[in-house]
Amino acid sequence: MNEKIARFLDERRPATPCLVLDLDIVEGNYRALAGALPDARIYYAVKANPAPEILRLLVGLGSSFDTASVNEIEMCLEAGATADRISYGNTIKKEADIARAYALGVRLYAFDSIDELEKIARSAPGSRVFCRILTSGEGAEWPLSRKFGCEPEMARALLLQAASMNVEPYGVSFHVGSQQKDVTQWDTALAQTARLFKELEAQGVNLRMVNLGGGFPTRYRTDVPDSGAYGTAIDEALRRHFGNRIPETIVEPGRGMVGNAGVIQSEVVLISRKSANDNRRWVYLDIGKFGGLAETMDEAIQYPISTERAGSAEPVILAGPTCDSADVLYEKADYRLPSDLKIGDKVTIHAAGAYTTTYASVAFNGFEPLRQYCI
Amino acid sequence: MNEKIARFLDERRPATPCLVLDLDIVEGNYRALAGALPDARIYYAVKANPAPEILRLLVGLGSSFDTASVNEIEMCLEAGATADRISYGNTIKKEADIARAYALGVRLYAFDSIDELEKIARSAPGSRVFCRILTSGEGAEWPLSRKFGCEPEMARALLLQAASMNVEPYGVSFHVGSQQKDVTQWDTALAQTARLFKELEAQGVNLRMVNLGGGFPTRYRTDVPDSGAYGTAIDEALRRHFGNRIPETIVEPGRGMVGNAGVIQSEVVLISRKSANDNRRWVYLDIGKFGGLAETMDEAIQYPISTERAGSAEPVILAGPTCDSADVLYEKADYRLPSDLKIGDKVTIHAAGAYTTTYASVAFNGFEPLRQYCI
Repeated sequence: MNEKIARFLDERRPATPCLVLDLDIVEGNYRALAGALPDARIYYAVKANPAPEILRLLVGLGSSFDTASVNEIEMCLEAGATADRISYGNTIKKEADIARAYALGVRLYAFDSIDELEKIARSAPGSRVFCRILTSGEGAEWPLSRKFGCEPEMARALLLQAASMNVEPYGVSFHVGSQQKDVTQWDTALAQTARLFKELEAQGVNLRMVNLGGGFPTRYRTDVPDSGAYGTAIDEALRRHFGNRIPETIVEPGRGMVGNAGVIQSEVVLISRKSANDNRRWVYLDIGKFGGLAETMDEAIQYPISTERAGSAEPVILAGPTCDSADVLYEKADYRLPSDLKIGDKVTIHAAGAYTTTYASVAFNGFEPLRQYCI
Repeated sequence: MNEKIARFLDERRPATPCLVLDLDIVEGNYRALAGALPDARIYYAVKANPAPEILRLLVGLGSSFDTASVNEIEMCLEAGATADRISYGNTIKKEADIARAYALGVRLYAFDSIDELEKIARSAPGSRVFCRILTSGEGAEWPLSRKFGCEPEMARALLLQAASMNVEPYGVSFHVGSQQKDVTQWDTALAQTARLFKELEAQGVNLRMVNLGGGFPTRYRTDVPDSGAYGTAIDEALRRHFGNRIPETIVEPGRGMVGNAGVIQSEVVLISRKSANDNRRWVYLDIGKFGGLAETMDEAIQYPISTERAGSAEPVILAGPTCDSADVLYEKADYRLPSDLKIGDKVTIHAAGAYTTTYASVAFNGFEPLRQYCI
């Protein structure tokens, strides 16, 4: 935790659990990514953390925005973004929502199926559309299912159809998997994308944009490559596959923009053992899977966790405070906490700025959603 | 869906997704369970669905309440329950919350560790306490982790200690696992409990209450035994292990009380295939894992799903509307929907009255939480 957040916690002593997010870190992340990918437009993935303070900051820095719903579009507009800086990036949209987005001025839409393309052509005529393709997602800590995207061969057919509809076939998107630590993963996807561009060009459709998606990681318990490494790898892959005809590019960082900017301050509610000779303590925190830490599902995202105690680190099982037996955070991952940890101690969950506040349940077990302070 | 709910949906045409819950079914469930277990006191597990209408109905029917937090205690009091009908059944409580519950009049508390027992003795002096023991949970569709409870040998030591503290060692609780379809599972747990009663009696501590927990199922895709079968099995097990000295008993139905009382009305947002020769359609609904269907995690709870189309049933993958790739409901479970299903069609998710509304996330991806109508 940096000094600014530490001072806030020390002076304000907010009730726990809460997320404290340092806007300066978000600004640093934006500038680092913009520096590493100078030719790409940054579309912040609003779903990662839609706090108005974050959106206003990014509007000021020149960011564009990737949105998942009309509510998110409205939040961006309220934060001062103009509609030409907003992409409606969800491939699954009600047609009424497409019409609302269009009325709000949004002209950039994702799709991955014929029916979605037809909805856009009907309800957002003249808009730019990009087709999401399926990629493997190897090397990601939060790998993607096949939920989004279609096979490149189908994408080709759809973009060809788009050319004869009342929309502009603008480009292709893919996603290499969230928390992607292998910088070469973009290369495979860009090879497929470049093939698609060439095939369509041969059929008279000139695509202009590649949406490189998100996947930029946050450092959790292990190191991740820095923005520069991603920039270099992506730049090389673009040159390798597109030669001197490099298209416009878009990136959609979410986790990579806000993940390391926030820490969750939590409290130990109970420490117990299940029998006299139980060799691992159960440590129950006042936040769990349903209070904002949904990404601990299958122990996928492993947040660094620290306390102020100095005792020797001993193995623990970490769990949340609800009466739900699935509300266990880490049982297989080898977490260790000081032997002298006490009930009431503060526990800091680091790198928790992304996918926490809005994942929190409304009131499961009567517990309130996670509060956030942007400082 | 029964006629009452069908009429409501037909006349009111609420925006989807929404949960419509028939209070008459809840009343029927209460009466059936009370009839099947005439000697047990029913403590409704508020976390399953804390709608004020449900709580008021159950107050009127004579139910008591199992609560997980001070907020839930306050909801029960507001619904008209007196504090002597409320159990603070969470074994993981902040001491400040125990003190608040005590100030509100609650005198019955769960624990499973020495530290929790000490908190209760300090902040809820004179209260009745029951110790939760670990059981196997075989046969449950939503099996429990080891998060709650301690080994019986430790429970014995703790209840013995309780006798020398400023609390009344009142009984033992266990939970055979949620959606428990094997009625004999209570037998094993009651055998352990009866041994504990005898051992403690030999040491001068006379326990009076057995909390049989929840686990009573809702019919999802396959049949479940009726309340009568549970009543008979539990009654026989009590007689077998306690002879003619049967203790007071408590049951904590949640799912079994409200599960079958509610249906979620949803809408098809998109139907797509990933390639031209893809043999399974992806059907995307306007509700998913983060909108209230969290119990589809690992495809554990399999809701019956129906539409109004008559086409032949063909295999589908069901997913939610968010940009989260983990928001897939059923991929391995063999779900089939009509071949003529269309975008915009209504889809009914049955037996969705429990663990849905409050599991919904605050605003993940900008989507609003699940609305509920109690009729």
